Amino acid sequence: MTTRALPMRVPAPGLPARVRIHEVGPRDGLQNEKGTVPTEVKAQFIRRLAVAGLTTIEATSFVHPKWVPQLADAEALFPLVGDIADVGDVSLPVLVPNERGLDRALALGARSIAVFGSATETFAARNLNRTVDESLAMFAPVVARAKAEKASVRGYLSMCFGDPWEGAVPVAQVVRVAKALMDLGCDELSLGDTIGVATPGHVTALLTALNEAGVATPAMGVHFHDTYGQALSNTLAALRHGVSTVDASAGGLGGCPYAESATGNLATEDLVWMLDGLGIETGVDLDELTATSVWLAGHLGRPSPSRTVRALTPSTSSPSHKE
Amino acid sequence: MTTRALPMRVPAPGLPARVRIHEVGPRDGLQNEKGTVPTEVKAQFIRRLAVAGLTTIEATSFVHPKWVPQLADAEALFPLVGDIADVGDVSLPVLVPNERGLDRALALGARSIAVFGSATETFAARNLNRTVDESLAMFAPVVARAKAEKASVRGYLSMCFGDPWEGAVPVAQVVRVAKALMDLGCDELSLGDTIGVATPGHVTALLTALNEAGVATPAMGVHFHDTYGQALSNTLAALRHGVSTVDASAGGLGGCPYAESATGNLATEDLVWMLDGLGIETGVDLDELTATSVWLAGHLGRPSPSRTVRALTPSTSSPSHKE
Repeated sequence: MTTRALPMRVPAPGLPARVRIHEVGPRDGLQNEKGTVPTEVKAQFIRRLAVAGLTTIEATSFVHPKWVPQLADAEALFPLVGDIADVGDVSLPVLVPNERGLDRALALGARSIAVFGSATETFAARNLNRTVDESLAMFAPVVARAKAEKASVRGYLSMCFGDPWEGAVPVAQVVRVAKALMDLGCDELSLGDTIGVATPGHVTALLTALNEAGVATPAMGVHFHDTYGQALSNTLAALRHGVSTVDASAGGLGGCPYAESATGNLATEDLVWMLDGLGIETGVDLDELTATSVWLAGHLGRPSPSRTVRALTPSTSSPSHKE
Repeated sequence: MTTRALPMRVPAPGLPARVRIHEVGPRDGLQNEKGTVPTEVKAQFIRRLAVAGLTTIEATSFVHPKWVPQLADAEALFPLVGDIADVGDVSLPVLVPNERGLDRALALGARSIAVFGSATETFAARNLNRTVDESLAMFAPVVARAKAEKASVRGYLSMCFGDPWEGAVPVAQVVRVAKALMDLGCDELSLGDTIGVATPGHVTALLTALNEAGVATPAMGVHFHDTYGQALSNTLAALRHGVSTVDASAGGLGGCPYAESATGNLATEDLVWMLDGLGIETGVDLDELTATSVWLAGHLGRPSPSRTVRALTPSTSSPSHKE
């Protein structure tokens, strides 16, 4: 563990004092990695993330193993980490696709669940085999039952900015589905730029339109992908709007199973570097987190795509950088 | 050439209507690449950048070849591209270290020069073999003679946010040297985050302090490195301050000669993606620029580290990304 003098802490006015990072590495990250990680390694990964100070760690998914074989061990994994949720203030949300997934999650003691919707018809058809409205109808009893069981519910909304088949996604279309998810009873949204095409003005426009539709800023999380290198500047735009829940993936895990150093999700380390510099509290120890990502990269057999991980560990994650 | 529907154009209030990109790929980029590029390829690179719409292309450096062997062909290169400056509104600045470098540049017809200073004593000693004040004294006659010849002068200031030996660099220290460069007669500053450690609040604090010291915002350029993935969010902070001159390197060239996909300079393509999305005019054709970077990457034998280049050319620059 090193003590770093950098980044220098210089707050900027008008930003949240604290950000809750919703760590998606174990679920969204690992489900999109080529290599399959042993259940015990996943459990250790989640424990190490908690030790690094992350308080919301999406643990796994109860989607049918046929669709996401990387997370087929949810039933075995969750009991290995469930106790973390009893210690301190750590939450371990799990993704559930339908009532059957909810049954499995609740039976294992999950107290925070997420459903995964789409803002576009094409992605809903391809990913959920349903129309957008049919998917909302499928989520309705899931959310209602979860709420009745006093579980918290997050509503993922993918393709909020662009869609690989439909192109640019109109803000009004996103607002309609987002509002519908909130009306079902979701506690929080995760607004996903699934293909990484958003830019800051677009982010602000969507958040503003959601406010105007009655969705309060504290209920909004943002989920940016770094496909075009835009994830962190989009996050900054969201912070300026008042958003204080940001999704990120340790080491930039996930998003591209086939390219050695391509990236999908915003890397938690890159996010923490910015938030540390801005003096925004996260509770995360960047060095501990970086060590965790380097350790996991060893299990995956590929270097972390996170620029911060690479810069902080030149000898282990990439050749050294000459200044 | 493809017609892309994305990014969707959604302006954000309070940003400049137009940004001038100061393209540093041929100089700052290539001087930090391991491979040496033939002079004819460099000339073609510069021409292609101009065709892509870049209007300020730093062409080369008249530093002694002993120090920067990659640019030892400045005398041969400049005549091959000097005519570009006569067509339209393209400027081809060159770096000059001292009066002898200035003589060489002026003799070849250069009409825009840059000097390269340091905000820290350690880097001044290591890079310039002088104290900061001695380096300013060395620049004084260079700037004066360049101005007398009606050449424009840019003052690079490196280590404005952090220094690998000194750690965090106090804002007041940067302001003192920046002000001194302006007092020598520089038309513009390039405020460099040479090791990539800045965060947005720090950027705003420095720009504000410079304003208070009498440096006007139009005289400020920003030069961010992406070592920790912060370059684009720092750029956004500078744009919000009113800065409209941004340095970037085509394809993210330079900065790390030893790591295959590590990055140094902000990639021009990643910048243009954001500016296009924000509806900020640059005059740059992103597809033409991306094709240029892919072409040059072939000559360098390594893929571009720019996320946008990789995303736009999955078949040529990296394996494809599954959505």
